[in-house]
Amino acid sequence: SLTDPQYGGGRSRFMEFPHVSAPHRDLMVELVSAVEARLDSCLLPCTLPPDVQYYENQSGNAQASLQVRSGHDSSPIDFVLGSWIHCQLPSGGALNITSFSAYLNPSTDAPNFLIELIRSSPTSLVLILDLPPRKDLALDPDYLQTFYEDTKLESRRQLLEKIPESQPYFSSSLYIRCIVSPTAIMTRIETEAGGVERMEEILQSHVGPVAKEVLGIWLDQCAFGEREVGDSEISYLEKRDRLIRSKTIEIDLGSSLPRLFGPETAGRVLEAMRGVFK
Amino acid sequence: SLTDPQYGGGRSRFMEFPHVSAPHRDLMVELVSAVEARLDSCLLPCTLPPDVQYYENQSGNAQASLQVRSGHDSSPIDFVLGSWIHCQLPSGGALNITSFSAYLNPSTDAPNFLIELIRSSPTSLVLILDLPPRKDLALDPDYLQTFYEDTKLESRRQLLEKIPESQPYFSSSLYIRCIVSPTAIMTRIETEAGGVERMEEILQSHVGPVAKEVLGIWLDQCAFGEREVGDSEISYLEKRDRLIRSKTIEIDLGSSLPRLFGPETAGRVLEAMRGVFK
Repeated sequence: SLTDPQYGGGRSRFMEFPHVSAPHRDLMVELVSAVEARLDSCLLPCTLPPDVQYYENQSGNAQASLQVRSGHDSSPIDFVLGSWIHCQLPSGGALNITSFSAYLNPSTDAPNFLIELIRSSPTSLVLILDLPPRKDLALDPDYLQTFYEDTKLESRRQLLEKIPESQPYFSSSLYIRCIVSPTAIMTRIETEAGGVERMEEILQSHVGPVAKEVLGIWLDQCAFGEREVGDSEISYLEKRDRLIRSKTIEIDLGSSLPRLFGPETAGRVLEAMRGVFK
Repeated sequence: SLTDPQYGGGRSRFMEFPHVSAPHRDLMVELVSAVEARLDSCLLPCTLPPDVQYYENQSGNAQASLQVRSGHDSSPIDFVLGSWIHCQLPSGGALNITSFSAYLNPSTDAPNFLIELIRSSPTSLVLILDLPPRKDLALDPDYLQTFYEDTKLESRRQLLEKIPESQPYFSSSLYIRCIVSPTAIMTRIETEAGGVERMEEILQSHVGPVAKEVLGIWLDQCAFGEREVGDSEISYLEKRDRLIRSKTIEIDLGSSLPRLFGPETAGRVLEAMRGVFK
């Protein structure tokens, strides 16, 4: 069970989100808790080694936590993954990244879930919130209709677009741009003028409600969507999922982890991630 | 030849771009001329009926021109398509849309070319400029590398993004968002403060040079890119191209043409377009 000492240490450390503000932490805890409550019977405990569930660099100015829970074979969940990274910056500030994602297995073609909050200062937020599609949407207008039009995800994107401090965020990786959906929320919010208070207000009053709605859509329509998938499609999904995951690890972590945590720790974490993502 | 009276009328009327400003017209003429010069030996004359090459509505406050030139069977060009639409608005202003696109056939998998300028007033421009991919980029990182990374298209997108009056444009159609590339230039430029002069300057000094560069990349790397395509891929390309074209017509013109030109004219034009796009 999750309260076993062997798992409990890493998980409780993860759920602390110790380096971010209260509204940021509360949002992450709410999202993770909502998924765990709803998918409880589908999820196994995290079995990552303790030194992958929590790791830091030699000088102690960078710390990170990683939790992965696989789904039972009989469930549509492949795994859910949560992480935070904290890194003190030479400028005196800190970089904080918190993320949570949920991956379905090829028994369904429904979209995955992804949220990532990147804070390079207390008045800066890059938000990525999406249900990344598992098929080529240009070739499947019905899939687009079902998961992106009928669910009115665009109206949620527009809510956050309308925040005065918000502007569209373009990932520097073209590949990442290719794997998100047309309603992906990719936004940069800067509240230098309004200060930290304004950022906390935006997190509480705007980002939080939208993130919870999008997660609710994912839980209702995707995780429990009960889609029929044929044999030929299963191998297509396996191939596409596998490629996207391996490219995503490479782009997200392949260069940043060694830089932040040194080659040895980075190697250990990346190997564990590749094991999960394979 | 293009100077035959039966073709010349429609073509010269098209090339007049009679309702847009000089810098806007010059840009369109330059792009069309550059393609025709470079692809000359590949292109057949336009064979659309005269009442599709030029059409207007009953009250005469909406006019449009359409030119389609198919490629020779031995060429990689399927067809090139140019159009303008002019429509007086009840407010006293006018809506002007000019577009030019080039479609390759399944003997190559290289991207197509697309430029569209939408002017709802003399100080407003929506620009869509892209090499739309012909494959699922999530599944083909090499294709992404070849046509979008190695060609440095992102740096051109960023040039136009940096114009102070520019902001990202999100198509109201989710499907259109799905078929453009990750480096697509989709931008809305509003120069109310700087007036018409500033818009003309932006067209001449920023939009024009970038559009010509992107077209040059398309001509060099795509139209004359000499890609090897296997048999199984040809049927994939045929299927994907056909679906995208039919959805695009439906979205772009399916509701707007009947509204602007009445059901009879719209029906005639749409039927001709479907014949070309099939």
